[in-house]
Amino acid sequence: MAEIERIRGVLLDIDGVLYAGGRAIGGGKETVAWLASAGIPFRCVSNTTSRSRRSIAARLRTMGYDIDASWIFNPPLAAIRRLQGKRTFLLAQGDVGDDFLAAGVPLVEEGAEMVVIGDAGNSFTYRAMNLAFRAVLEGAGIVALEKDRYWMGADGLMLSAGPFVAALEYATGSEAAVVGKPSPEFFRLALEDMGVRPSEALMVGDDLASDIGGAQAAGMKTALVRTGKFRQDAFEASPIRPDLLLPSIADLPGALSKRYI
Amino acid sequence: MAEIERIRGVLLDIDGVLYAGGRAIGGGKETVAWLASAGIPFRCVSNTTSRSRRSIAARLRTMGYDIDASWIFNPPLAAIRRLQGKRTFLLAQGDVGDDFLAAGVPLVEEGAEMVVIGDAGNSFTYRAMNLAFRAVLEGAGIVALEKDRYWMGADGLMLSAGPFVAALEYATGSEAAVVGKPSPEFFRLALEDMGVRPSEALMVGDDLASDIGGAQAAGMKTALVRTGKFRQDAFEASPIRPDLLLPSIADLPGALSKRYI
Repeated sequence: MAEIERIRGVLLDIDGVLYAGGRAIGGGKETVAWLASAGIPFRCVSNTTSRSRRSIAARLRTMGYDIDASWIFNPPLAAIRRLQGKRTFLLAQGDVGDDFLAAGVPLVEEGAEMVVIGDAGNSFTYRAMNLAFRAVLEGAGIVALEKDRYWMGADGLMLSAGPFVAALEYATGSEAAVVGKPSPEFFRLALEDMGVRPSEALMVGDDLASDIGGAQAAGMKTALVRTGKFRQDAFEASPIRPDLLLPSIADLPGALSKRYI
Repeated sequence: MAEIERIRGVLLDIDGVLYAGGRAIGGGKETVAWLASAGIPFRCVSNTTSRSRRSIAARLRTMGYDIDASWIFNPPLAAIRRLQGKRTFLLAQGDVGDDFLAAGVPLVEEGAEMVVIGDAGNSFTYRAMNLAFRAVLEGAGIVALEKDRYWMGADGLMLSAGPFVAALEYATGSEAAVVGKPSPEFFRLALEDMGVRPSEALMVGDDLASDIGGAQAAGMKTALVRTGKFRQDAFEASPIRPDLLLPSIADLPGALSKRYI
C-alpha cells in the first residue's frame, strides 16, 4: 500500500458506502461519530439527482446517521455554481428542483439560457425533450447532473440521465458539461467547503470509475470499500487502483489511525 | 454537366419532390405520367417512418398522383428484409406497424430479438425506452429506420428518431444498423424491385446528404430539385454535387430526353 500523508478531510460516498439496499452499513454510524471526535471534517457526496440535499440528509437520519443537509454535496450544487442565476430549464424528477429554487435559480419552460438534465425517469417525455432541444438550438448550454448509463431499479434496469443527455447532444451538436462525479470540479467543490486541499483529503467510495478514478483526477487520496456495487472481477479487470482497499466503512478509523498503510 | 448514360429506371423522393407543404409540386403528375408512357419504371422512396406504404400511397392519390402502394419504398421495408421474421420490439407511431404485421413480423414487448426504432413522437416514453434498452442488453440488435436529428413540425422543430437511437446506443454500447436513406442498401432494394442496375438509375431528391449523397454511394446517377428543403447556401457550401440540378420535378422529362446533359 502507498504511504498516505496525514488525512485532514474525508469525502464519503453515500449509496454503497453509508448504506446499501436501503440499510445502513454495519459500523457506519460509529465511523461517522469517530470522524467527529477525531476532529476530521467530512462531507457526503452523492450523484443522486432525484432528491434534494434535505431529502438525502433526512433519509440518512432515518438510518441513524447524524448528518446535516449542509454536509451533503450533490450534482445540483455544482450545477447551481455554474448557472450563476441564469434562467434554467430543469429536466429532473422528485424534489431536486428545491435545491435550485433555494439558490435563487429561475426555473422556466421557455426562454431558458441553460438546460439542466438529471435522472428524470417518467419526466423524460417527448414534449420535455423537444423543449430542451429547442432551448439549446436557441443558444442555451447543456449541464448534465450525471451521465450514467443506467441503474438497478426494483423491477429491472432503468435508464439514467446519460442516454437522454446523449440524445440531446446528438440532436444539437452541442456537448454537455457534466458536473456530478467523476468530474474533478465536483470533488473540489466539496473540499473547498471544508477548506481542505485535495492532497490532504481521502475519498471513500464503492465505484471504481466514478468515486476512485474521479477523486484521483482531482488529486485526492482514495479508499475503495467492498460494499455496495463493489465486484471482485471488475476490480481485478480495472487499471484503477485505490490507495486503500477496505472491507467496509467500519474499517476507516483503523486505517486512518495508522501512519503508514 | 456530366454525361449521363441512358436512364432505365428512376427513384423519386416524395416529400419535397412530389409534394411540399402538403401540396403537389406543379407538373409532378405530368412527369409521373410521362415516365409511364416512356416505359421508364420508377419507385417512390420515402424516409417517413410514421406511415405505412398504403397510407403514403393514399396520401399521394389525394394529390392526384397515380401511385400504387407497391411502388412505395420506405425504411420499414428495408428493416423487414433484415429482420427475417424475428420477434421485434417496434418503437414507432402511426400505422407503420401495419407494414411489419403484413410481412409476418411478430411484434412483441418482451423477449424481442430485434429493436426497431422510427420516428415515434409521443410514443418515446421512459417506459418504452427502458423496454428497448433491456431487450438490447439481453442480446437484441438495434435497427434504426432513420437517424435524422429533427424535422419541422406545425408548432416548431421536433426531435426525429436519431436522438433516441443515439440514447439507446449510449446506454447499451451497441451500434444501430440504419436502414433508411442514406443507406445504400435502401436504394438497392428499390432498384432490385425494378430489375435496374444502380449505374442505369437516377435518384431525384431535394436533400443533398440523404438523397444525393446516399444514391451516389449506391452507384446511382442523381438529380437535385430546387423544391422542398433545397437551399442555395447549403448547396454552395456542400461538397456533394448532383449530376443534374433541376428547378423541379416538372423538368425531369426534358432532362431525360436529352442524350447529353
